[in-house]
Formats: sequence, C-alpha cells, structure tokens
Amino acid sequence: MRHLPDLRVNAERLHNAMEKMADIGATPAGGVHRLALSAEDKEARDLLIAWLEDIGLEIIVDDMGNIFGKRPGKNNKLPPVLSGSHLDSAPNGGRFDGALGVLGTLEVLRTIHEKNVETERPIVIVNWTNEEGCRFHPAMAGSGVWSDRLDKKKIHDQRDSQGRIFIDELQKIGYKGTTPAKRFPVHAYFECHNEQGPVLVNGGKVIGVPRGIVGVRWKKVFLKGTANHAGTTPMNARKDALCAAAEMILKVNELPAKMGQDMVATVGEIDNFPNAVNVIPESVHFSIDLRCWNEDLIARAWDQLTTSLEKTARKRGCTFETKESMNLSRSSFNETLCDRLMEISQSLGYPALKMVSGAGHDAAYLAQIAPAAMIFVPSIGGQSHVESENTTWEDCEAGANVLLHGILASAMEK
Amino acid sequence: MRHLPDLRVNAERLHNAMEKMADIGATPAGGVHRLALSAEDKEARDLLIAWLEDIGLEIIVDDMGNIFGKRPGKNNKLPPVLSGSHLDSAPNGGRFDGALGVLGTLEVLRTIHEKNVETERPIVIVNWTNEEGCRFHPAMAGSGVWSDRLDKKKIHDQRDSQGRIFIDELQKIGYKGTTPAKRFPVHAYFECHNEQGPVLVNGGKVIGVPRGIVGVRWKKVFLKGTANHAGTTPMNARKDALCAAAEMILKVNELPAKMGQDMVATVGEIDNFPNAVNVIPESVHFSIDLRCWNEDLIARAWDQLTTSLEKTARKRGCTFETKESMNLSRSSFNETLCDRLMEISQSLGYPALKMVSGAGHDAAYLAQIAPAAMIFVPSIGGQSHVESENTTWEDCEAGANVLLHGILASAMEK
Repeated sequence: MRHLPDLRVNAERLHNAMEKMADIGATPAGGVHRLALSAEDKEARDLLIAWLEDIGLEIIVDDMGNIFGKRPGKNNKLPPVLSGSHLDSAPNGGRFDGALGVLGTLEVLRTIHEKNVETERPIVIVNWTNEEGCRFHPAMAGSGVWSDRLDKKKIHDQRDSQGRIFIDELQKIGYKGTTPAKRFPVHAYFECHNEQGPVLVNGGKVIGVPRGIVGVRWKKVFLKGTANHAGTTPMNARKDALCAAAEMILKVNELPAKMGQDMVATVGEIDNFPNAVNVIPESVHFSIDLRCWNEDLIARAWDQLTTSLEKTARKRGCTFETKESMNLSRSSFNETLCDRLMEISQSLGYPALKMVSGAGHDAAYLAQIAPAAMIFVPSIGGQSHVESENTTWEDCEAGANVLLHGILASAMEK
Repeated sequence: MRHLPDLRVNAERLHNAMEKMADIGATPAGGVHRLALSAEDKEARDLLIAWLEDIGLEIIVDDMGNIFGKRPGKNNKLPPVLSGSHLDSAPNGGRFDGALGVLGTLEVLRTIHEKNVETERPIVIVNWTNEEGCRFHPAMAGSGVWSDRLDKKKIHDQRDSQGRIFIDELQKIGYKGTTPAKRFPVHAYFECHNEQGPVLVNGGKVIGVPRGIVGVRWKKVFLKGTANHAGTTPMNARKDALCAAAEMILKVNELPAKMGQDMVATVGEIDNFPNAVNVIPESVHFSIDLRCWNEDLIARAWDQLTTSLEKTARKRGCTFETKESMNLSRSSFNETLCDRLMEISQSLGYPALKMVSGAGHDAAYLAQIAPAAMIFVPSIGGQSHVESENTTWEDCEAGANVLLHGILASAMEK
C-alpha cells in the first residue's frame, strides 16, 4: 500500500537546484572540481543550508562536518528516516555523483513541505563529509566515523598532499560543528545516486536497485626478473619482468570470463624498474582489483590466478610476491526496502532492475547499522569520475520520485 | 706474418691495474659507480695519467676531456694506431665495462715499452669522455664530438638531473683541455671490451670479433583508451589502455622469433595514466627497442608489428600513435682488421667467434672515420651495467694479448 500515490517531485525545481549546485566549482568541460573541505565545498554547504532553512528544517552540523537537516514527524521519539549523499566531488569529477542524492532528498522534502504532508516519523536529510577520499584519505570518512567504523581522531589528523590537516581545513571552512559525530538510531537509510557504470543504460532501465555493494579485494604483485642490456642479451637468455607482468595483466583481465557471475578484475597501477628504453626490466609492481558479489568466488579466483601467475613467472624465469592491501566484505542492503523500491519503480512506470553496486558509497557504512537501500539512475556512457559524467533530467526525476515514495513509505511506518 | 710472435702481456700487471682502478668508486657488491665528470671520474683520470706518464707518453687532453697518450713510432708523420675505451661507468655498473679497453691498451703499451719494441707508426691510447650517457645525455659524447658526429656546443650545454652543466663539471674536475676535440687521421682504431652478453660464454669462446654494431631503432607508442571506474564498469564495456599495452608488449617480445636472424626486441619503459588501483587505465606510453644486423629486417619487422598493434588496439577499443626517437644505422668494422684479429686469436690458441655487437660503443663513431675493430671477451652470466658484471682474469689476459698483436700488426705497417 502506497501513501499519496499521486505525489510527484517537481522536476524543474530539481533540475534548477542541480544546475545551481553544479555552478560551484564548475569546470570548463561541464564537470565540477569540488574537493572535500575546499572553498568550493564550503560554498556548496552554505547553499544547501540556505535551502534547508527555507523549508524550516532544523540544522545540525557534527564535528566531522556532516550536515543534517531534520523535518519533524508526528512522533519524534521514533527513529527518523535518513536520506542523502555527498556534495564533495572527485578532482575534475561529475555533476551528478553525490549531488543527486543530496538534492534529490532536498526535492523530496520540498515536495512534502509544499504539500504539507505529515509523516509519522521525522525525516532527516544528510550531506556526508569527504565521500570521495581524493583530497584526504580514506573515502567515506564522514559516514565511516559517524557509523563508528572509522576512528575520528585519525581522520581529523589526515593530511592532504600539501600537508594541510583535515581538522584545520574543516575549521577553516566553518563546518566543525559542536555535536559529536556519532550514530543515532535510524529507521531506514536511502541514497539516490547515478550508477557510475553502464548496466542500466545497456539494459534499457531507468531505475537500478542494488541489493548491496560488492566485496573488494586489492592485491599488490611484486615481480623480480634480471636487468640486462637490451642490445646484447639474446631473447632466450632474458628474465624480463615486464613481459611476465604483461602476461599476468592479461590473465587478470581474462579472469572474470573464466569465473563467471558479475566479477570484474582490473590492473590499474604499474611501476617498472629501472624503466629505461635500453634496459631489460628488472622488477615490476602492479595492482589487482578484484570485485564480485560472491565473495567465495573472489577467493577461488585469487587461488586460480595465483597458480596461473606462478606458471608465468616460472616460464619467464622470474619470481614474485603478493601482498593484500584491502579486503572489504560486501555490504548487503535491506531486502524489504529493496523489494519496496522495485515495487515503487514499477508502479510509477519506470523499468527497474535489481543489481549490485561495484562502487563504494556512504550507504555501505549505513547498511552496517541500519536498514539501508539505494536507488540508481543511468549514467550516460557508463562514465563517472570524469567531467563528461551525465544523466538525463528525466532519469534524475525518476530517481527522485522513487526516493520520494521510498522515504514516505518508511516515514509513515509507526 | 706476425711481428714478435712470442710477445705476451703481463697478466698479473693487468690484473693489478684493473683492481686499482676498480677501487675508485667501488660499490659494496663489487661494482663501480663512476659517473662521467664526477669526483670518481677525476680520480680515475688522474690515476691513468700517472700511469701513462710512467711509460713516457705525451699526454693531450682536449676540450671534451678526452685523454690521449702518445707513444712515438719511427715515422711520426704517419697516422697513429689509436686504441682505448672509457673509464666512466653506468650507475652502480661493472668494473670491466670500458676500463678493460683503456687498461688493456695501457698493458699493451707497458709491454712494448718494457721490451723496447719500436713500431713504424705512433700508438695512441685514448680515454673517451662520457661513453655511458647516464649522467649527461647522449652516450658516446666524447668520441661523437671528436669524430664530428655530435655538436660540441650542445654537448657542453647538457645538464644532469640536478641541473649541473657538462662544461662546468668538466672544468671543475680539471679536464677541459685546450686542444680542440677534433678528429685527426687514424690508421686503425681498436677497442677491447667485455661482451656484455652471453654469446661467448654460451658458445664456449674466449674471443669475439664483432663485424660491426647492429642497427637500432627506438619507437615510442602512445596508447589511448578510456578511464573509468574499476568497480562499476563491466569487462565488456572497457577500453583498457594497459590491457592493450600488455598485448602489444608480448607481441614485441615475440617479434624476433617470427623475424629470425639476430633480432632482439625490448620494451624497457612504460608509463601508465592515471595509475590508480581502482581506475581503468586511460593512457599508456611504452618504448620499443629493435636491433638487428640486417636493417631491412628491422624495417620489415616494424611494418609487421604496426599491423599487429593496430589489430590489438582495434580489439581493445583503443587508439595509438607512434613516434620514432632514434634510428641508428649499423656500423661496420673493417673486414681486414676483423679477419686479422680472428687469425691472431687462433694463432694464440684462443677459441674465437665472429659476431655482431648489440651494444653501442665509441668504436661505432670511430668506424665512420677510420678502419676500426673490436675485441670482445666473455661476460660471465652475460651480465652488464650491473655490479655483478664479471670476466675471468684469464679472459682479460686473452683479450689484451689479441689487442697487443692487433695493435702491433697495424703499427708496424708502413
């Protein structure tokens, strides 16, 4: 049973808000450069707070700089429905990544404010600090500290590449609040986001409902061959670490087809030594990023890959070591909420798809402490973290409408 | 007809000189770090000059820092026999590379000095400046300028990675001579050198006589794919520049087996962008070093490779451009001199092999202006430009004996 089934967001108002926000840190090629705790981030936050105050929300800023805007319900002792995302961007990133989740929620709140909708529970909009993790490591810092998964002191002490300290920068932009960043009971968490991949576009769908975020394993491979003169060393006398690495990179690339399911495997980083045109490479380091919803399959894939890499190394006269640099378990979203978002999408006439998210989101931390769910809308060309990142305004509207009815359904629960 | 057929160098004296020289810039693992125009280079030059003066040679230092030591003949109007190599080393390089050619010639001169051998022509020993080209580009700078193949002003203005200028550093070590670095008529040029490859060791030979130095072609490949999120981009939607590069590197590696003859092919350098563990590589640059005695084969190999690389790029959804960064013709040594060195080796009881040199040497420039030849001795394990570079003292002695009789035969010519 849906409440207020005819209620819809104002697509034009959402569009305008998105455009206004995209002006802050706008880049020539249509993206945004709005790094966490920068002057642009401050400007974006100021604008958001002005908008939240316009519809009478109670603003709370915690000592991680997370911004909450609360709209009371009938029964304010009940845990609220929380919804939002982040306003910081990747360097020369896209206009939709994060902003859509914050401004989509703003539009939901504007809509129910305008229609004087009274909900059972309070609704809280949130802008999490430093989701991208590009200026200050790690990513998802605001939601991670708030959820008690990251250490606040450590995050406050992080430095950017210029040596500037997180807590100083937070203070400088005026967003170190007095409320301690600490989880409070949440009835349901929603986050609307552009997909950042091509699954929806390729499948002709408008809404994606991820059942969770995939498990991620990062490995580093350190290969050792023998440096020698590129002119005098016959081909059969070489122990060329880069040739061994090239074979291995292709094996990593072929792994998902072999293992099946939704696995993706990437070598994104490579360093070669001594890296001289006329010297046979002596040692190579490269990274492996393996992701899959099925974590057992990641483990099996890694085992198979290791055997295969050993073969390559032997054949090429090289040795290698590996080191695990990250091993994140998958995050499962709440099934009831996901099913409800699918139903809402269908009843609103939006072709929808259950999927999994290959990217990390603040919702990953939230899922560990509360029922959580996400709504994806299509990314044109599957592109993200680039200035050309794009989503149609119709699809933004669709995402916001699904978010509206998802939030309402949870907020009406007694 | 050989002159003084029973004459031999003093193996122990040669050994001692090599050990003394190897103390200058000695590295813990048994190599030398004696970069061109460094304090160590100065010390090595000072020691050489002291030794040359001990046997009464006339010393000339030119304005490239090349050091010549002249022993008069009966007829000093005749062009001299020139022999030598270089005392500078690669960073953490080997003790034999270059030093053997200089100190082998020194031992030849000490031997004929001791025995009061009178030659028809003068004999000149030479230490060329900056053969390695590691601190200041390019390699073989001293011989290149002297032979009129490189521009002196340009070489003088080169800077090392710390911004220090060649001519300043040359002056600082006191080796900017007043004689202009300019070719003079040479009757024959000899250079004794460790092979720097495994051909002699694998063939069980003691002496190698290269008929020349292979042609070398360097290319740079610039590959362009599409950066995207490593977690959200399905395998079949990727344009991964590093995967394309990996396929190409293996194709370069397989090229010599396909083309046959003595071709070698190396990818020594690779740079990946943005080089982040969780981003699909957008662009990759890598180098190709192709060498072969048969220059037509290099051209054919490059054509075939280009077609094959185009296929890979197409398959991977990438584009690429190539740029030629070097195209050196092969240098042919003098056939008469080479045949004579083979005969001398055989008559001295040293198993010898005609071969080609895959490495560049000062002799490459000398071959363009005078009859030139080289004598190679085995490199244990085929290693060079590494601290563990090694040659047995017996093989050094053999090389110096072949050099002795090679120099004598030419120096006796009227």
